Amino acid sequence: MTLTGQRLVETMTDAERARAERVEAVLPALRAAAASADAAAEFPSPHVALLREAGLLGLVVPERFGGLGGGLRDLAAATYAMGGACPSTALAFFFHNTSASRGLLPLEALDAGLFDADEAPVVRAFAEKVLTRMAGGTWMANFASEEVKSSGANIAIATTARPAGGGWVLEGVKSFGCATGVADTYLVTARLDGTDDADGLALFLVPREADGVRSRDPWNGLGMRASANHGVTLTNVFVPAGEALTVPGAFVRMLRMSRGSFVGNQLAISAVYLGAAQAVYDFTVDRLTRKTFADTGRPVASSPMHQMIIGEMAERLETAYLWARRQLELETSEPPLRPRREVYRQWRIGKGDIAEACFQVAVGAFKACGTSAATMDGVIGRGLRDLAMGLVMTFPAERGRLEAAQMITSDRENALFASVSR
Amino acid sequence: MTLTGQRLVETMTDAERARAERVEAVLPALRAAAASADAAAEFPSPHVALLREAGLLGLVVPERFGGLGGGLRDLAAATYAMGGACPSTALAFFFHNTSASRGLLPLEALDAGLFDADEAPVVRAFAEKVLTRMAGGTWMANFASEEVKSSGANIAIATTARPAGGGWVLEGVKSFGCATGVADTYLVTARLDGTDDADGLALFLVPREADGVRSRDPWNGLGMRASANHGVTLTNVFVPAGEALTVPGAFVRMLRMSRGSFVGNQLAISAVYLGAAQAVYDFTVDRLTRKTFADTGRPVASSPMHQMIIGEMAERLETAYLWARRQLELETSEPPLRPRREVYRQWRIGKGDIAEACFQVAVGAFKACGTSAATMDGVIGRGLRDLAMGLVMTFPAERGRLEAAQMITSDRENALFASVSR
Amino acid sequence: MTLTGQRLVETMTDAERARAERVEAVLPALRAAAASADAAAEFPSPHVALLREAGLLGLVVPERFGGLGGGLRDLAAATYAMGGACPSTALAFFFHNTSASRGLLPLEALDAGLFDADEAPVVRAFAEKVLTRMAGGTWMANFASEEVKSSGANIAIATTARPAGGGWVLEGVKSFGCATGVADTYLVTARLDGTDDADGLALFLVPREADGVRSRDPWNGLGMRASANHGVTLTNVFVPAGEALTVPGAFVRMLRMSRGSFVGNQLAISAVYLGAAQAVYDFTVDRLTRKTFADTGRPVASSPMHQMIIGEMAERLETAYLWARRQLELETSEPPLRPRREVYRQWRIGKGDIAEACFQVAVGAFKACGTSAATMDGVIGRGLRDLAMGLVMTFPAERGRLEAAQMITSDRENALFASVSR
Amino acid sequence: MTLTGQRLVETMTDAERARAERVEAVLPALRAAAASADAAAEFPSPHVALLREAGLLGLVVPERFGGLGGGLRDLAAATYAMGGACPSTALAFFFHNTSASRGLLPLEALDAGLFDADEAPVVRAFAEKVLTRMAGGTWMANFASEEVKSSGANIAIATTARPAGGGWVLEGVKSFGCATGVADTYLVTARLDGTDDADGLALFLVPREADGVRSRDPWNGLGMRASANHGVTLTNVFVPAGEALTVPGAFVRMLRMSRGSFVGNQLAISAVYLGAAQAVYDFTVDRLTRKTFADTGRPVASSPMHQMIIGEMAERLETAYLWARRQLELETSEPPLRPRREVYRQWRIGKGDIAEACFQVAVGAFKACGTSAATMDGVIGRGLRDLAMGLVMTFPAERGRLEAAQMITSDRENALFASVSR
Repeated sequence: MTLTGQRLVETMTDAERARAERVEAVLPALRAAAASADAAAEFPSPHVALLREAGLLGLVVPERFGGLGGGLRDLAAATYAMGGACPSTALAFFFHNTSASRGLLPLEALDAGLFDADEAPVVRAFAEKVLTRMAGGTWMANFASEEVKSSGANIAIATTARPAGGGWVLEGVKSFGCATGVADTYLVTARLDGTDDADGLALFLVPREADGVRSRDPWNGLGMRASANHGVTLTNVFVPAGEALTVPGAFVRMLRMSRGSFVGNQLAISAVYLGAAQAVYDFTVDRLTRKTFADTGRPVASSPMHQMIIGEMAERLETAYLWARRQLELETSEPPLRPRREVYRQWRIGKGDIAEACFQVAVGAFKACGTSAATMDGVIGRGLRDLAMGLVMTFPAERGRLEAAQMITSDRENALFASVSR
Repeated sequence: MTLTGQRLVETMTDAERARAERVEAVLPALRAAAASADAAAEFPSPHVALLREAGLLGLVVPERFGGLGGGLRDLAAATYAMGGACPSTALAFFFHNTSASRGLLPLEALDAGLFDADEAPVVRAFAEKVLTRMAGGTWMANFASEEVKSSGANIAIATTARPAGGGWVLEGVKSFGCATGVADTYLVTARLDGTDDADGLALFLVPREADGVRSRDPWNGLGMRASANHGVTLTNVFVPAGEALTVPGAFVRMLRMSRGSFVGNQLAISAVYLGAAQAVYDFTVDRLTRKTFADTGRPVASSPMHQMIIGEMAERLETAYLWARRQLELETSEPPLRPRREVYRQWRIGKGDIAEACFQVAVGAFKACGTSAATMDGVIGRGLRDLAMGLVMTFPAERGRLEAAQMITSDRENALFASVSR
Repeated sequence: MTLTGQRLVETMTDAERARAERVEAVLPALRAAAASADAAAEFPSPHVALLREAGLLGLVVPERFGGLGGGLRDLAAATYAMGGACPSTALAFFFHNTSASRGLLPLEALDAGLFDADEAPVVRAFAEKVLTRMAGGTWMANFASEEVKSSGANIAIATTARPAGGGWVLEGVKSFGCATGVADTYLVTARLDGTDDADGLALFLVPREADGVRSRDPWNGLGMRASANHGVTLTNVFVPAGEALTVPGAFVRMLRMSRGSFVGNQLAISAVYLGAAQAVYDFTVDRLTRKTFADTGRPVASSPMHQMIIGEMAERLETAYLWARRQLELETSEPPLRPRREVYRQWRIGKGDIAEACFQVAVGAFKACGTSAATMDGVIGRGLRDLAMGLVMTFPAERGRLEAAQMITSDRENALFASVSR
Repeated sequence: MTLTGQRLVETMTDAERARAERVEAVLPALRAAAASADAAAEFPSPHVALLREAGLLGLVVPERFGGLGGGLRDLAAATYAMGGACPSTALAFFFHNTSASRGLLPLEALDAGLFDADEAPVVRAFAEKVLTRMAGGTWMANFASEEVKSSGANIAIATTARPAGGGWVLEGVKSFGCATGVADTYLVTARLDGTDDADGLALFLVPREADGVRSRDPWNGLGMRASANHGVTLTNVFVPAGEALTVPGAFVRMLRMSRGSFVGNQLAISAVYLGAAQAVYDFTVDRLTRKTFADTGRPVASSPMHQMIIGEMAERLETAYLWARRQLELETSEPPLRPRREVYRQWRIGKGDIAEACFQVAVGAFKACGTSAATMDGVIGRGLRDLAMGLVMTFPAERGRLEAAQMITSDRENALFASVSR
């Protein structure tokens, strides 16, 4: 049997296939809940247990920490497959998995000798804690984004941590974060009070129910409405020292290990949109080849206009696959096909192209299916709304191309994270 | 004072200006109700009285029938201005006004001698009835569209009228029609039983509360949600002979008088979208020039990405104005600037270009404003949803261009209406 | 009879029509020479006498100076019509006419009181000299552009004038200038030695055969090959004081009078490309409706692919007309429809859109006509090459949109001219 | 050392690398002659000996017939590398290699049992003759295209073969064929007199100097001017039976073996354009990062407009690589990744996307480099002309997408070849 994820990750090892089968098994439940979750704008809470019991919360955690041992290929195949069933769940699941990079990248940095003898044990302990908990069934939401904008970085951090007896006290607002109120633990990025550059960025594990943590009011998102991404306010939140990684510069050194797309797994967020776009495309082709013209009896799909739109949808969809598969190849090939710098640049362009192409698939479907499908709640309308979110998630295509141009012409890279005081 | 409508119709006669002032006066009420009407997906019922009392239900009815004597320029200025305040209301108001064409075009056809002595009095009586009632304060919803598709025509009519004692009995489903359950009267296009071409198309005035008329279930539209466009089912609905125009071929002869865009006022539906796009654009530029980067204090609008997107939005918006103003000029200039055929072809292309350009303005706004504006209910999200509807309303840009190509290369026009039996 | 120029300028006064008839009369000669002029990359020298004898060298010179009294509408109609016959000649004719702005704008600035009593007579004398000579049959090529680039201005001037006994001595290179070696007089923009801003820009009338003037080597242009635009080197060229306008700031004050597009007539350069695009379109539609498929006997134009391309060509071509007619309206309406600032901004966008649209018409024609028309010398190949030049002439669409965005968001305008020393 | 072809075919076996080194060795000679060959519109005749001596005429001929044993990956790497040096030579070389498919596909069809015992020896003899001669140093130009158009097929064949004593007599015109007057042998596709479908198509080996063969007048191509593609007229040309493959249906059965792109190697023609586009891109980035603004001293590449254009060029170029590499993978992977049908559909879309993307790279380069690079003979102007040819070669992108849509919605494929009588 061909697994859904194999449309993106065409060849799988036996181990990959075994992990993909776990994903395949949860798809029917995701698909069944998708429409009502979107309508209610609520993350379907049973999905937490579903994914936990399937072992999928440890999908990309190495086996030695109790995880399934998957890598980026597994994650992309999983978010792609889930994206075709319930994009919101796929998105939230993706962000849980990004937390693993805060365990994996420090371990890589340790192996690369980027930490000295004093720092190493602290860094290792934190990294292993993150990974072990995830594998143990902790949903660990990754809370980085804030509303403040920086001209020089993709993400600006104003949330502050100041030392307090035996730990740290956090103050700030995380404006976006999937699985708000759902995840067991929030992995919060903050700046150490008194620092003013990325070396002062640090990580904190904050239990969902900790004192001072409050979910922001649910926002009425246009799409991805069931991903519970409304974020939290942190008011005088105490975090014990053992639940934080505050070694100066650890965050920056960790990022340096990332192979390409951002912190090394962003491709899997694009896979969410790609899965969703494929579902919209399939629905559209099926609908238009079944529906017929009253006067001729021929399928609506056969009209010149529909042929034109379907041809363009097919082209757009395939373009998205090409960028996604290439990025996956660039980030997983051994030995590396291209230097890190090129992999990184490729992603700046590819991320935008995938998002644009997937959105265009939805727009094509919308036009081809006409007014009768132009509803809020159908596959087409929901697809258009969900896929629109890809245009703004992380950065728009226009920004990615400009950043690539800068890298091409002046050897300068845009910073991923900035620390800003207000 | 510059009136809103003057952004589209730049120079106005005194009479036009006086009519535009009536429109301007209702805008605040429309604007105030827009967000909640969208959220509730209900036409704001007080708007009926508001527009009636402002005399606007007779906006395009000649003064001799009690109307305000406006023409297409007035209608476009009005729907444009309303479109910037509440696109749903503007759309419903537009469709009310299209009913006037079923009075005005027959009168023109009479003047042109297209009806013989037997037919003339019947046609004239019906035409005057439509116009007099509209001017008298009747909201007359125009119900043409059905779900059935014809490969050769833009609108296919399967609703049937069969003769019955002193009148006609209607059976059918009108799948789309603004002001469903709101309008006083539905102007229904149907085919006379036993006919099989456009000569058999006829018009019927059906009171909202007539026996056998049932509003379809409200549908959950993606945009234009407050236009009450869910349509009706007609089951054994009796219409007295005097409330119908069933002269064979009257419908077709009437259409022949239309100057250009469809039945001669479609430009005003594009003006709805244009008004809405301008509002989205204004909101975006204002927001991005006020909001600043935390690190540099410069406006977000000044980033290269935002400059790029704003430049493209400006280009798209102006392109839409160009097509709209040109169509208005082509359909109202005396003597005509171009033969009817060219005016008609221009519209096939222009309609699509305006819709696409307006939608692109919304997509640009969406990208430029980022995740924090990517909500269902804000100006940006609502704008994206409302403007998406323009892509499918009547016909998509792709179809319009193909129809224009056919006219260019083979002197063939697409039919507007087809009569189909099922 | 409908004149060619009336496709762009639809309604003409009697005087405009009379001037347009002079243009119409020269079109056959232009058309006849176009292909060979392109092949030889030489301006057809008989065209100088042809245009002079037709009185067209004074087309936009007021009657009181001996000209025909035309304005921007006449110029645009003329360059449009000529552009359909021989784009190179149209382009060279356009640049001759821009010289008139160096007479007309100073006169306007005088009327506006921008010069004091000392300056006024000098400025007036120069202005009248330019206009009188043009009306008298002098082809006056406008030489502004240089190879040096400035980041802040569209045109940077490094050619220097230093005072010498009773006049000025020019040194520099003008890299682009139509009618090189053909025009009677070169109108040269230079910076006064020792100045470093636009106030130091000055104008000089240099006879073609003056000592120290040397035509640069003809360059092998991709398109517009017969416009003799290779430019000149000026080595120690003496210009008597009476043949120069060196009043400090005169140039800048003069530009301030311009209504919109650059120095007030750039729309007419876009009209050249529009005329050329219309000719390519006409050729293509004619060819494809005549040529038939061997298997079905139907016109090639009827294939879905050709219908699709023709529809898009029609849309692109009409878009170009819309921008061109609007700009013409904005720059000639009395009273002005919009403030100067908006007219100017409109042009930044419109110039690029017209060029892009016209080029896309050529690309569409190229694709639709296939390999057999993909020649260097046919209508399609020549059209593609000539229309490509529009993409880079003055500034590309991307730059125009970015400049418009800057005006929209920060009230800053790009400078037209900069003075740079090297 | 990284070979040029490795930018496209990233990983090579040792044998592939050895073959690619032969290609690398001829690049300097190709590059040196490119500009003058374009200007003269003549195939550089020394290239025949150069390629023959390098063994490259047998590049894709199996070793058992004396060739180098390369496959599609080798061919694509070769035409890509040559395309960056001299696109015309690369194109002519590509068409020589397509002749090999007329040997290889019949052999595959034989293995697949598509020929019966009577037919097999004849088919095998012809196939081996073609391959042996190519490996032996015969430049075998593939002459299929004609001017006649068929609505239902990509290539229509009207050239006729009628039986004559011991052989066949050909009559017809081949309107396009690289290496006209240069190749040793023309491989001519013709229809057997009296047949009217593709089963009647047959192949003939015609020596360049055979009686009745006349090169058509050189045409003045827009691009790919040095590929000598003017074609031949065949008047009463006798071909001995042993030099023909006239088994009924052999042609059709042979095509059935093709893996994907057309007759199984069209990807390599796209590689020509991709190589050319990369060269244009490299030139542009280099030029713009070296050239500086006179006022700021910063590279021209750093302006917002240039950043925008360079970002888009990078995106377009990479898109072309993605389609090309994917097609290569689809056509060469063992076991096949996708069914033949999908591979074929992918090509219909991919061919157009590559051509469009490569052309857009040239247009971006043209705009970014401005008027001073807008010459006929420079890298930019030549690139624009050469890459324009990709838009019409075989079929435009619009047609490819429409054909893909037809396959998606109705399981119908477009025929590659049609036989038409006139």
